[in-house]
Amino acid sequence: MAERLIVIGGDAAGMAAAAQARRRRGRDDLEIVAFERGHFTSYSACGIPYWISGLVSDREQLVARDPATHREKYDIDVRIRHEVVAIDLDRREVTAVDLDGGGEVREPFDLLMYATGAVPTKPDWARTDAAGVFGVQTLDDGSALRKWLDGDPTPQRAVVVGGGYIGVEMAEALVLRGLSVTLVERDEQPMSTVDPDMARIVTEAMRGLGVDIRTGVGVTGLAERDGRVTGIRTDAGDLPADLVVLGLGVRPNTALAEAAGLPLGPTGGIRVDRRMRVTGVPGVWAAGDCVETLHRVSGMPVHVPLGTHANKQGRIAGINIGGGYATFAGVIGTAVTKVCDLEVGRTGLRERDALAAGFEFVSVIADSTNRAGYYPGARPMTVKLIAERPSGRLLGAQIVGWTEAAKRIDTLAVALWNRMTVDDMTALDLGYAPPYAPVWDPVLVAARKAVDALAPR
Amino acid sequence: MAERLIVIGGDAAGMAAAAQARRRRGRDDLEIVAFERGHFTSYSACGIPYWISGLVSDREQLVARDPATHREKYDIDVRIRHEVVAIDLDRREVTAVDLDGGGEVREPFDLLMYATGAVPTKPDWARTDAAGVFGVQTLDDGSALRKWLDGDPTPQRAVVVGGGYIGVEMAEALVLRGLSVTLVERDEQPMSTVDPDMARIVTEAMRGLGVDIRTGVGVTGLAERDGRVTGIRTDAGDLPADLVVLGLGVRPNTALAEAAGLPLGPTGGIRVDRRMRVTGVPGVWAAGDCVETLHRVSGMPVHVPLGTHANKQGRIAGINIGGGYATFAGVIGTAVTKVCDLEVGRTGLRERDALAAGFEFVSVIADSTNRAGYYPGARPMTVKLIAERPSGRLLGAQIVGWTEAAKRIDTLAVALWNRMTVDDMTALDLGYAPPYAPVWDPVLVAARKAVDALAPR
Repeated sequence: MAERLIVIGGDAAGMAAAAQARRRRGRDDLEIVAFERGHFTSYSACGIPYWISGLVSDREQLVARDPATHREKYDIDVRIRHEVVAIDLDRREVTAVDLDGGGEVREPFDLLMYATGAVPTKPDWARTDAAGVFGVQTLDDGSALRKWLDGDPTPQRAVVVGGGYIGVEMAEALVLRGLSVTLVERDEQPMSTVDPDMARIVTEAMRGLGVDIRTGVGVTGLAERDGRVTGIRTDAGDLPADLVVLGLGVRPNTALAEAAGLPLGPTGGIRVDRRMRVTGVPGVWAAGDCVETLHRVSGMPVHVPLGTHANKQGRIAGINIGGGYATFAGVIGTAVTKVCDLEVGRTGLRERDALAAGFEFVSVIADSTNRAGYYPGARPMTVKLIAERPSGRLLGAQIVGWTEAAKRIDTLAVALWNRMTVDDMTALDLGYAPPYAPVWDPVLVAARKAVDALAPR
Repeated sequence: MAERLIVIGGDAAGMAAAAQARRRRGRDDLEIVAFERGHFTSYSACGIPYWISGLVSDREQLVARDPATHREKYDIDVRIRHEVVAIDLDRREVTAVDLDGGGEVREPFDLLMYATGAVPTKPDWARTDAAGVFGVQTLDDGSALRKWLDGDPTPQRAVVVGGGYIGVEMAEALVLRGLSVTLVERDEQPMSTVDPDMARIVTEAMRGLGVDIRTGVGVTGLAERDGRVTGIRTDAGDLPADLVVLGLGVRPNTALAEAAGLPLGPTGGIRVDRRMRVTGVPGVWAAGDCVETLHRVSGMPVHVPLGTHANKQGRIAGINIGGGYATFAGVIGTAVTKVCDLEVGRTGLRERDALAAGFEFVSVIADSTNRAGYYPGARPMTVKLIAERPSGRLLGAQIVGWTEAAKRIDTLAVALWNRMTVDDMTALDLGYAPPYAPVWDPVLVAARKAVDALAPR
């Protein structure tokens, strides 16, 4: 008789796992049921800001595979708008609520794939029924926000709370839509995913775009009238707004897991082993934004909610569920984003991470250009390297530049992944031609500068 | 008393060496004299096609440091238009001819830096006095060509002979200048720096640009009238031309070295050790396009004339001359170029190189896009990987894509440099965001495909 796999969460991690498992085990060997709370499966949440801005015209473009495809192509019984509300590990069954039809179903499982993603951080002040306050976490969130933007009256003044990736991307999106946008950030500046000296360049670019940036400001409440938001209250005064976007980060969605007794780690994410099995719970797997993972540089568990990891981890879980063998190697914190033409990339540890992990290090910042200085379109590019002292091992890198900059972080990510020293890196054979780099590639310029910083002459 | 360093050749390798040596040894300790045959020092030969096309407006933009800067900033006695015609290793002196003033000087040396670069391959048929036939090797060549393009009568029909980097770049440059351009290539297609399956994409792009490409055609002679070129003769008929550009590759410029008894290797380049010392000849150093170097993948000596290596090698020679310690780690054959918006990158071994080196391997080609498929401006990108069988070690990689493609070869170059397997590569933490990559980066897609090719299920 076929085993039964139940997948909780129909986005990247869950459906990647299901598809991989199906590839290795036919329907006679494995029955697969997937529950998804929302309306969509396998979509790109990272693409939502570009749909909001209008750069991407249709919501459907963000959906990689709809439920019908999963059913027909992979023979997966996908049930959207079904929220799993309980997991019973002893009886090996889950309870799901049909959010549209009402009613509850219980479904038995032999194997369980937990892939519930993350939930937005929501402080008390943000718990409101007032219209006009949005998270940007799911495609359903995006749909609601789009509707509000096209509503009557049309919102004119937006406040984005929080200056992480989603906050910065949403601020740009709303400026592109013609709104007047204020970004409120509690820290000294937004984009704290890079060190302050690099974040400063991003802050200036955002101001150049017309975003009103208020730093060092804490939000204390919302102002509402007639069930609609009219502004936010901060410790530095009130700000009017007819649209408030929450970009305060996310935490692992583990309510269900906790209730079922799945183990959580220090980051709040579910603890899994290298094969993505939930630690100590036979037959239960987890992947994606709900788990914690190993940071290969610090050696510490981290929570890095990112579609690319969710897909990789889901695939690995699926290979293992399917009877194969695969392990997840951990992350090094690589990420890229853009603010208008300004591109930002990072990998490894920031200075504060390196300090927290106990490393001694030097940091250098090298200014260069993305192309040979004389080639048309050459633009400034700044590379920061953090290297362990005295070993010279690369611990982290950040790039900020105007066009053709961010993805160069991959070069540094692979160097870091392989535990290269900055001294070894100066020898790297990187592509050179005038449209692509000065004769000394910006990465090599930075590596040379780091070598000098480690061993001053 | 100060030692005396004589540098032969005032371009990248020679002047990088001189500058590094000066940094470590003051003028009281080291006197530096540099002879340069041409009018310029430290310029970007790779930039010449873009100056020809008009993308770069002034010749001076291509000059990184002119003789005056070398004299004033580095206290180097630079003598342009001086050609060294003999090296006497026993007497430790060189003989140089003043090409403008006439006359000959002899200069003694304690240390010698040989950095004469490369000379264009010139078959017998190309040895002509007829006007209108040009190499594109030096800035002086470029000046002559620019003058011809602006001359009276203005040339209308160009033939570019040879489809390597310089040939392809020059064909594009001349099309941009409004000429009708024919590219003649002896092999089955141009751009043989990548495998034929990848080169095909480039060939199509060039045809789309309006370049008339004739492949499998050997040139047998030139047609001339009144001292001007009027066409070329080939084994497939005659082609009219009032401008002929030779892009037949280069070989190490070693005439002087041979006469002096410096050792040459199997590639025709000067043999040097890891510190860039000429093998077995005390006090003599060589670097740049005139030397051969180690290919880290094949383990064989190769001749790779490229400004980036010349700069690195020159710097290393200079550090050693200056009393420091540095070694050149070899190359892996990374190179990038572009033809209109089509970008081409390569690293490591092509299939033919892998065969010649005795490797067993698989190759895979993976089609993807440079951005998330739904993000505006997403364009096709093709990644080819060559991996050793059965180890899975990456041996070579090639990328062809429309915009934002070529420099991604660096990611693969660093993976290859670190002897990664394609299996390890599937785990790499690369930057993901919709403007930069699909959720599975093209590099990861290709690595997964290579893993499948190595171990079919």
